[in-house]
Amino acid sequence: MRAAYMYAPGDVRVIDAPDPRIEEPTDALVRLVRTCVCGSDLHPYHSMKPNPRGVSMGHEYLGVVEEIGSEVATVTPGDLVIVPFVFSCGVCDFCREGLQTSCRHAGIASRRGSQGSQAELLRAPFADGTLYPVAVDEHSEHLASLLTLSDVYGTGFHAALTGGARPGATVAVIGDGAVGLLAVLSARQLGAERIILMGRHESRTDLGREFGATEVVAARGEAGIEAVKELTGGDGCHVVLEAVGHLPAFEQALGIVRPGGSISRVGVPQYTEGPIGRSQFARNVTVTGGVAPVRAYIDRLLPGILDGTVDPGRVFDVELPLDDAAEGYRLMDTRAALKVMLRA
Amino acid sequence: MRAAYMYAPGDVRVIDAPDPRIEEPTDALVRLVRTCVCGSDLHPYHSMKPNPRGVSMGHEYLGVVEEIGSEVATVTPGDLVIVPFVFSCGVCDFCREGLQTSCRHAGIASRRGSQGSQAELLRAPFADGTLYPVAVDEHSEHLASLLTLSDVYGTGFHAALTGGARPGATVAVIGDGAVGLLAVLSARQLGAERIILMGRHESRTDLGREFGATEVVAARGEAGIEAVKELTGGDGCHVVLEAVGHLPAFEQALGIVRPGGSISRVGVPQYTEGPIGRSQFARNVTVTGGVAPVRAYIDRLLPGILDGTVDPGRVFDVELPLDDAAEGYRLMDTRAALKVMLRA
Repeated sequence: MRAAYMYAPGDVRVIDAPDPRIEEPTDALVRLVRTCVCGSDLHPYHSMKPNPRGVSMGHEYLGVVEEIGSEVATVTPGDLVIVPFVFSCGVCDFCREGLQTSCRHAGIASRRGSQGSQAELLRAPFADGTLYPVAVDEHSEHLASLLTLSDVYGTGFHAALTGGARPGATVAVIGDGAVGLLAVLSARQLGAERIILMGRHESRTDLGREFGATEVVAARGEAGIEAVKELTGGDGCHVVLEAVGHLPAFEQALGIVRPGGSISRVGVPQYTEGPIGRSQFARNVTVTGGVAPVRAYIDRLLPGILDGTVDPGRVFDVELPLDDAAEGYRLMDTRAALKVMLRA
Repeated sequence: MRAAYMYAPGDVRVIDAPDPRIEEPTDALVRLVRTCVCGSDLHPYHSMKPNPRGVSMGHEYLGVVEEIGSEVATVTPGDLVIVPFVFSCGVCDFCREGLQTSCRHAGIASRRGSQGSQAELLRAPFADGTLYPVAVDEHSEHLASLLTLSDVYGTGFHAALTGGARPGATVAVIGDGAVGLLAVLSARQLGAERIILMGRHESRTDLGREFGATEVVAARGEAGIEAVKELTGGDGCHVVLEAVGHLPAFEQALGIVRPGGSISRVGVPQYTEGPIGRSQFARNVTVTGGVAPVRAYIDRLLPGILDGTVDPGRVFDVELPLDDAAEGYRLMDTRAALKVMLRA
């Protein structure tokens, strides 16, 4: 099969790789319909240690079940399925609590070193707990939006939900990437009254406005903090959704959160230490969020996609064949593209 | 009047100080019934910069209203009142939301440099919003417990409530000082199933068991983390209440919290930076808590004291006259006393 591998910073190639096979009776084999490049794929694109064997890339996937192991009960060949970016058994206590990222049998730890999803075929372990079948076919008009349920939409929703977006609340979203924009959409769905989007790319913040942002602040750092404070009568925001992951974004979040408010982080922290002393404590600021258990949110988010209420797939502004994955990385790295979808 | 002043590390004296007077029409003057020494008073006791004029000490108070300003409407001379450690107007949006510590007209900022409560008389600003009258007299058997509502009981309750102590939850409490022990009591009141108290002073942890702790772990650091993990099948606790304030206690909290769980801090952080990177993020750990708006909790906690259901005043193991305040500090500093109450 064809699959995208990364060998060094800036060096992505689509190569012929061995087809994956059913290895466990709980596996399914899924054939690619749509996959994509994630903002987090750009971290190794900038700084990976060169690896002559290459690293299999990608973690978002929409596909058709080709084959199932003998113990798989909830999907059958021919089903269109969403493959969340974290695999999960579906039966352990963490999965039942909706924290599939901490699944006792799979979870985020299991993803390390496993095959990437920028590939024509994907072996999905714990198919019953991982795959989410959708009653449409692979020519559906909703493919782009369905693909967002494998990561970015669920991640934005995780931010908004854990941060406490609610009617009457003023919410700020830091970051105008796909996750930030879908955090805006999610905050709107949860009833937030005002949504201030902090981002500098006008085409992206324009989409953010269509998703529900009521104000846009292009400034960042101290100037951005001042701008948000001015918009909120000096108080800051009840809820801040941090969709970047760099320390200055967290510091900005601390600067714009209202006393008693919360910061929810869904940008993977690129830091280990940060300011959590008295400035947070004296104002009773909560820091929450984390790696999103997107599998938990599909039940809730899918109906709005299928009935046309929301169209999160609009975050994909470029579509390329899988064989052009390297060009997709280049477009995202240069910010010529917001998010690149790859088709079979 | 007599009042306790601190002049240098280890140097506390009770002196004759000028009587406070009504300064604003919203003030009340309160005469001492009971006050006490707080664990946080020990920080300057160890490290204050010598000050020849002295610093007026204390922030917990139970007294009788002596005189009121012309605009005070909710208390009258003769009322026994609880004086929360933070003054609050009672009418701004933060006060109405129950975050009196961020009151727009008073709050924690207003406390800096104001007169301390280890004194025969106290000027209470915003008397209507600050003072809480109780329908008992100054000879009540409940004085010690009523005094805890001015800080330590409300602070322990704030930890348990914001941390999410609830039926079915396993809660750990780090710290066996008065706040930690009352966090145990509060977690029990909120229905927590298991309460693991981490502390090294047996007389204190024994009281913790009477307050509701189901297990006690004396080890700390890595050994303490291992012990709690072993008690919880390797998972850690749903809720961790951190009632110390030093960085190792926060690190211990991170080590024993279950994925998806929360850490609530009520020990004033003696650090500015701490570990909030991927170890918190990957496990979806929430960090909450802060300076407790104890005024908000009196409505809820007072009935249990008056009807004898709970007796939080048991944290006071030594009672001295105000004139012996220096001895009270010494006893707490050497840990000969858990918490010292001072009487008029």
